[in-house]
Amino acid sequence: MSVPINHPNIITCKAAVAWGAGQELVMEEVQVSPPQPQEIRIKVVSTSLCRSDITAWESGSIFPRIFGHEAAGIVESVGKNVTEFAEGDHVLTLFIGECGKCRHCASAKSNICQELGLERRGVMHSDQGTRFSIKGKPIYHYCGVSSFSEYTVVHSGCAVKVSPTVPLEKICVLSCGVAAGLGAAWNVANISKGSTVIIFGLGTVGLSVAQGAKRRGAAQIIGVDTNLEKCKKAKVFGVTEFVNPNDYNESIQQVINQITSGGADYSFECIGDTGMITTALQSCCEGWGLTVTLGVPKAKPQIAAHYGLLLSGRTLKGSLFGGWKPKSDLPSLVEMYMKKEIHVDEFITHNLPFEEVNKAFHLMREGKCLRCVLHMPQFLSGFQVGKDLSSGPSGSCQEMDESNSMSS
Amino acid sequence: MSVPINHPNIITCKAAVAWGAGQELVMEEVQVSPPQPQEIRIKVVSTSLCRSDITAWESGSIFPRIFGHEAAGIVESVGKNVTEFAEGDHVLTLFIGECGKCRHCASAKSNICQELGLERRGVMHSDQGTRFSIKGKPIYHYCGVSSFSEYTVVHSGCAVKVSPTVPLEKICVLSCGVAAGLGAAWNVANISKGSTVIIFGLGTVGLSVAQGAKRRGAAQIIGVDTNLEKCKKAKVFGVTEFVNPNDYNESIQQVINQITSGGADYSFECIGDTGMITTALQSCCEGWGLTVTLGVPKAKPQIAAHYGLLLSGRTLKGSLFGGWKPKSDLPSLVEMYMKKEIHVDEFITHNLPFEEVNKAFHLMREGKCLRCVLHMPQFLSGFQVGKDLSSGPSGSCQEMDESNSMSS
Repeated sequence: MSVPINHPNIITCKAAVAWGAGQELVMEEVQVSPPQPQEIRIKVVSTSLCRSDITAWESGSIFPRIFGHEAAGIVESVGKNVTEFAEGDHVLTLFIGECGKCRHCASAKSNICQELGLERRGVMHSDQGTRFSIKGKPIYHYCGVSSFSEYTVVHSGCAVKVSPTVPLEKICVLSCGVAAGLGAAWNVANISKGSTVIIFGLGTVGLSVAQGAKRRGAAQIIGVDTNLEKCKKAKVFGVTEFVNPNDYNESIQQVINQITSGGADYSFECIGDTGMITTALQSCCEGWGLTVTLGVPKAKPQIAAHYGLLLSGRTLKGSLFGGWKPKSDLPSLVEMYMKKEIHVDEFITHNLPFEEVNKAFHLMREGKCLRCVLHMPQFLSGFQVGKDLSSGPSGSCQEMDESNSMSS
Repeated sequence: MSVPINHPNIITCKAAVAWGAGQELVMEEVQVSPPQPQEIRIKVVSTSLCRSDITAWESGSIFPRIFGHEAAGIVESVGKNVTEFAEGDHVLTLFIGECGKCRHCASAKSNICQELGLERRGVMHSDQGTRFSIKGKPIYHYCGVSSFSEYTVVHSGCAVKVSPTVPLEKICVLSCGVAAGLGAAWNVANISKGSTVIIFGLGTVGLSVAQGAKRRGAAQIIGVDTNLEKCKKAKVFGVTEFVNPNDYNESIQQVINQITSGGADYSFECIGDTGMITTALQSCCEGWGLTVTLGVPKAKPQIAAHYGLLLSGRTLKGSLFGGWKPKSDLPSLVEMYMKKEIHVDEFITHNLPFEEVNKAFHLMREGKCLRCVLHMPQFLSGFQVGKDLSSGPSGSCQEMDESNSMSS
């Protein structure tokens, strides 16, 4: 699987390479192959860190690897048979793709493309090879995106064009977390007006669920988190009550059942803790209670629940990318952002130069950020490079004093 | 909790009493108290045995007890404040009731009445007492019905009136199993035309799901059972393919995934085996696959499933009594039966005199029946008493040679 390093179209650039599980990323010079048929090569502008990058980095087995899957950039070149994109197009990357041809893409009921889904194990779809290498040694991809690199190659089904007027340094966070939460509320749960909603975990995904619930007119949006600092920020996104499990002697489901007089209409597990899925089921009501699970657990992938919770009319539903068909639906979210109909900037608690990617990992592991956006050097104008950009002019965290101690 | 035995309105009659877990029922003379306010006393005409009677009898802890919850009869007397029923009314009993007032009864989304649900632990709702006794010693109820008695008392919310033209000796089976399966297909899964359906367990409930799927125009209805004899009967109800797991070396989900090219649209767990719920999830497709769980497990009440099964777009939904609001909706099913729009008689593989209730238990435990209907002595005209009534003139099992070796 060696890659020629002297090909005229190979780009050598900086990428943050993970050499092993849990090891600090190393900024390396990598060779990025030209895009193969149906692929595009993207000059990354901004990329944000998501919890699932960390989960895969901590517990994965495919290394060396380039992480990153929330990104916005500009098309540098296109492979054969690519008609949808041209050099210079502004794009958002997609960690699950949309081939447009399989029976899932053809169905209105699914966003789980059978060609470009999550099955890729660190290689490209077309030839099971990598487009990254260091001196001929292949470096693996992550989620078909690998945006912690100045340039990356993705399948053309794994990107969507956006207008050049859209601020790429902001909308990168729409390519996973924010969209996942909004879609879970709107597409998967289809929250109705006046309803009661419980959200376990107030990171970017959970707060996006809250935002979605608020827009649907939910009457009660209860956020559950052990991080007290979340309370203030949570209100911005629509959380009406904050519950810290540490404040109670009873189980959290007992607390919730008291507050909601018998359980919520909807509960969302946004932590990635399978044990919490059971609690989420117990916290929603008999008859029509719906639990949506969004998190990717790093341990204990088995869900356990007493059958009686289901028999009495509850439903447990999974949500990947909020049920959005990534290529078809993401433009509508970008439009909503541009019309200021949804909060996006408010999730960006930190802006950092790409070189400080490890700082972003630390901040998220320590629960001190929502989204850290990493900006590539050539796009850093406007930021005060060299200092913590979380308080810089383009950061949106000025409004929130607690930004440095937020959990994700 | 003693009951006066010399009350003028007490009825002394025969009932099949379970004195302990798994012990043969004993035909006893019991005293049946008059109905209290909001209650009615019913002269049972016919009652059928359901798998959940056996599960509770084998593993329950409330004894002595009178089982039976699928029944049809005639109102003998009514308690105070009962305006809906009068002496002589023909009724079906309801193992979950409908108070008509709670927020679940008020909602179109739920059939889990908060007043008359499954929470009753062997006693009557109004005073937590029993209406059965033997020489003053209370005998406990089951599911608020206890129809293995010539007379029983139920809450007026736990019965529904039917026309005197409806054959009570047949429609008793509609008061649980048949309705549960049809409702799971229609109300809970809402099966769409042309879809693929997998049914685990081809007892009365599973075959009712098949019947429901067929009426909705499902293209492929795959029945899974280890009992070969099921095959022939299953076709009557719409099963298009029969899969016996013992015929394969691969796991059943692998077999199903091959047959269905990636999993079914709907899968139904009708066995009461929580391990099979996982298999059912694995047997339905990504994106929109829906697993409905109907069974009541006698062991291992914990469901376990890998979170990835849900994350990729599957849904797990519980179904109690098929989502029917028992009092509001059952008349429509009775009407469908009278118009010959649904099979009901075909489930009755055996007709037995009430005295042979233990034979019914044996037949079901040995997997040799679908429904055994027990007929009270005074309503036995038309049956050839004293012989196995499964081949008697009113039985419907003449059509099926394999009736004596069917599993339930």
